[in-house]
Amino acid sequence: MRVEIINTGSELLLGSTLNTHGAWLGQQLMPLGLRVQRLVTVPDGDPIRAAIKESVEGCDALIVTGGLGPTSDDVTREATAEALGVDLIEDEHAVRCIEQFFEKLGRPMTPSNLKQAQHPVGADVLPNPHGTAPGVYVPPRMGSASPCAIFLLPGPPHEMHAMFESEVYPRLKALVEIPEDHGITEVKFSGVGESSFQDALDEKLNAIDGGAMEVGYCARPGEMDLRLIGTSAQRLEGKQLAISTYPDFYVNEDGASLEATLVRELAASGKKLALAESCTGGRISSRITDVSGASAVFTHGYVTYANEAKVAMLDVNSELIESHGAVSEEVAKAMAEGALLKSGADISISVTGIAGPTGGTDDKPVGTVWIGIAEKSASGIEVSAEPKLYPQGREVFKQQVSQATLMKILRVIR
Amino acid sequence: MRVEIINTGSELLLGSTLNTHGAWLGQQLMPLGLRVQRLVTVPDGDPIRAAIKESVEGCDALIVTGGLGPTSDDVTREATAEALGVDLIEDEHAVRCIEQFFEKLGRPMTPSNLKQAQHPVGADVLPNPHGTAPGVYVPPRMGSASPCAIFLLPGPPHEMHAMFESEVYPRLKALVEIPEDHGITEVKFSGVGESSFQDALDEKLNAIDGGAMEVGYCARPGEMDLRLIGTSAQRLEGKQLAISTYPDFYVNEDGASLEATLVRELAASGKKLALAESCTGGRISSRITDVSGASAVFTHGYVTYANEAKVAMLDVNSELIESHGAVSEEVAKAMAEGALLKSGADISISVTGIAGPTGGTDDKPVGTVWIGIAEKSASGIEVSAEPKLYPQGREVFKQQVSQATLMKILRVIR
Repeated sequence: MRVEIINTGSELLLGSTLNTHGAWLGQQLMPLGLRVQRLVTVPDGDPIRAAIKESVEGCDALIVTGGLGPTSDDVTREATAEALGVDLIEDEHAVRCIEQFFEKLGRPMTPSNLKQAQHPVGADVLPNPHGTAPGVYVPPRMGSASPCAIFLLPGPPHEMHAMFESEVYPRLKALVEIPEDHGITEVKFSGVGESSFQDALDEKLNAIDGGAMEVGYCARPGEMDLRLIGTSAQRLEGKQLAISTYPDFYVNEDGASLEATLVRELAASGKKLALAESCTGGRISSRITDVSGASAVFTHGYVTYANEAKVAMLDVNSELIESHGAVSEEVAKAMAEGALLKSGADISISVTGIAGPTGGTDDKPVGTVWIGIAEKSASGIEVSAEPKLYPQGREVFKQQVSQATLMKILRVIR
Repeated sequence: MRVEIINTGSELLLGSTLNTHGAWLGQQLMPLGLRVQRLVTVPDGDPIRAAIKESVEGCDALIVTGGLGPTSDDVTREATAEALGVDLIEDEHAVRCIEQFFEKLGRPMTPSNLKQAQHPVGADVLPNPHGTAPGVYVPPRMGSASPCAIFLLPGPPHEMHAMFESEVYPRLKALVEIPEDHGITEVKFSGVGESSFQDALDEKLNAIDGGAMEVGYCARPGEMDLRLIGTSAQRLEGKQLAISTYPDFYVNEDGASLEATLVRELAASGKKLALAESCTGGRISSRITDVSGASAVFTHGYVTYANEAKVAMLDVNSELIESHGAVSEEVAKAMAEGALLKSGADISISVTGIAGPTGGTDDKPVGTVWIGIAEKSASGIEVSAEPKLYPQGREVFKQQVSQATLMKILRVIR
């Protein structure tokens, strides 16, 4: 099935708005085994007409976003009717939906909104609970002019996403005849590089069921998703193979962020966490408190950016700093221990390093970091620290160190 | 001048890579008064041929990204020669450039890389100091088949950006005959909404020189850029009008981030800053320490997420918390004062609020925040606090509160 996408909207071509529709739709279509053959972005108004006419003639399924508003340059509906050689008619049910939307807002509906209730003769109206613009579905082979299935969707991302999931995906699934058991599993790993992962596993994953399962990878700084598309038995086998190969780097398979996974598992373990951050400057605390419910597990964060702060806030012995330097195993351990004692937490983590671009030496180059950990145990407090190196620049450094630290805590509490 | 863009690359249609080329190029073309009429994204291979043929016939300037690599599905060069009806020839200078690039990497050049030294007869080769693929420039009206100027650029963003700036921009500028004095000024504001700004200033800005200057706005959470394109005199008048209308919300006009501006101005003032964060959980500290050189102005950060942490780390009187609640003027002031005294800084800022989605009450709904400030003065310490409301959800809340806080410090030290 040849799929094309048309994204309409002048703002997408001015540089002020990044077009995320293409990537989002590409991801949604993948579990259906569909690939986008061409994506065309055009400004509002007449260019929409030419784009729709051309695509309708050249593909089997067309998704158009935007241009369903009430103003004169919103011409997606008219352009589609023109391309199909049919008239537009007003839909009674759609009129009532738009009226109800305005009632909810407490504002009167304007006459120009009536235009939004129109659709090409023979098409279906797709409800839009999040905005005034209903969508439109033109079934394939509706008229002799077009064997193409056409979906007209609103431009705002949250309206488009909701309508795709509830109205478009099921219709496409029926058209491509995907078996009921077919689905997608995404497994998140952190701390193992995409290329090492592929070298170790790609061949084995692609051998499952003679290659019937589709295997994909999506890498982000410090983490990657393994994407498996196939039957539930194929996906289970692939997932178990990957997790058993890299048990220490496994995060989750529910799409939650690393920090959300950590907050959830800390809460389940009943343990409280304290953080002592130097080089990450609060990034780790900020990521944890991005998660609603973080207050149940995280109470104290010490951002000890200066040496005096390490001494004053965490009782680090200033002689330790003088003799070993602030970026050292000894200071990382003292910071973690200080944070544990001061806060009363069950686990504490410390980071001290050189984010760069300045401050590096031959012994301790830019990117060096010590990660310390202190934990309450039956026999007292256990303290340790390990060195890491992330020399790819300040922004990547902070992200990678925070990622490695969150992962370290997760491993400790599991 | 009708401008079209073709972005090639299968990864752009799979959802794994966001296509940022369109937005970036849209921004770069704006100072030249150019607007993109159509942007087409196609996968590698044959679809490139159809897309180039179609665009060459319909526009005055065409920018193609990607498909200049050494493999068989990199067909941008061949497709362009086909569309123009000319042959491809090998360029001696380009061969040497590619050889030198491989020498620098210490790797041998493969025969397939020779393909990258080819270009359509009559076109110019554009050097690529950052990769193996040289670019290509086809001047307009070169052959009867195409009156269109064509630029073939490499796909990786850093290679494409560098080549656009050094090779494409000057050629386009010559083609559109922009006067020497024409340029772009971007003025950053924070804390004033885009719509208020437009209501107050849009008409006046568009009246300068009878509307000869182009006025644009780019809004991000908590801040906006005013973009002025015109002669230096027009831009100066527009800029002064905007700053004099909103002096308290002015950030800079050099494109630096708010946090970088703050670190620079704190360093110039010789003042040190301490931060006491509750609801932002370290976000403000993290933003400040994203700036290289932050250690000169920021030393102590107190992430007092729990009430006990406010008492233990900042000496906040626990009775204050009991009688007024943690989210209150009194506690915000006590946190700021505690941070100033504990750290020895010259200025300290505190934030305490309800990020949500839970924890709100009728008196203090989700989104409520108190921002406190303490400052050393001749007569001792001055402490104050002000309330704000950002009810748009946890992630927006943290961003907006950190933005308002950084802006508040900037106003105080200016």
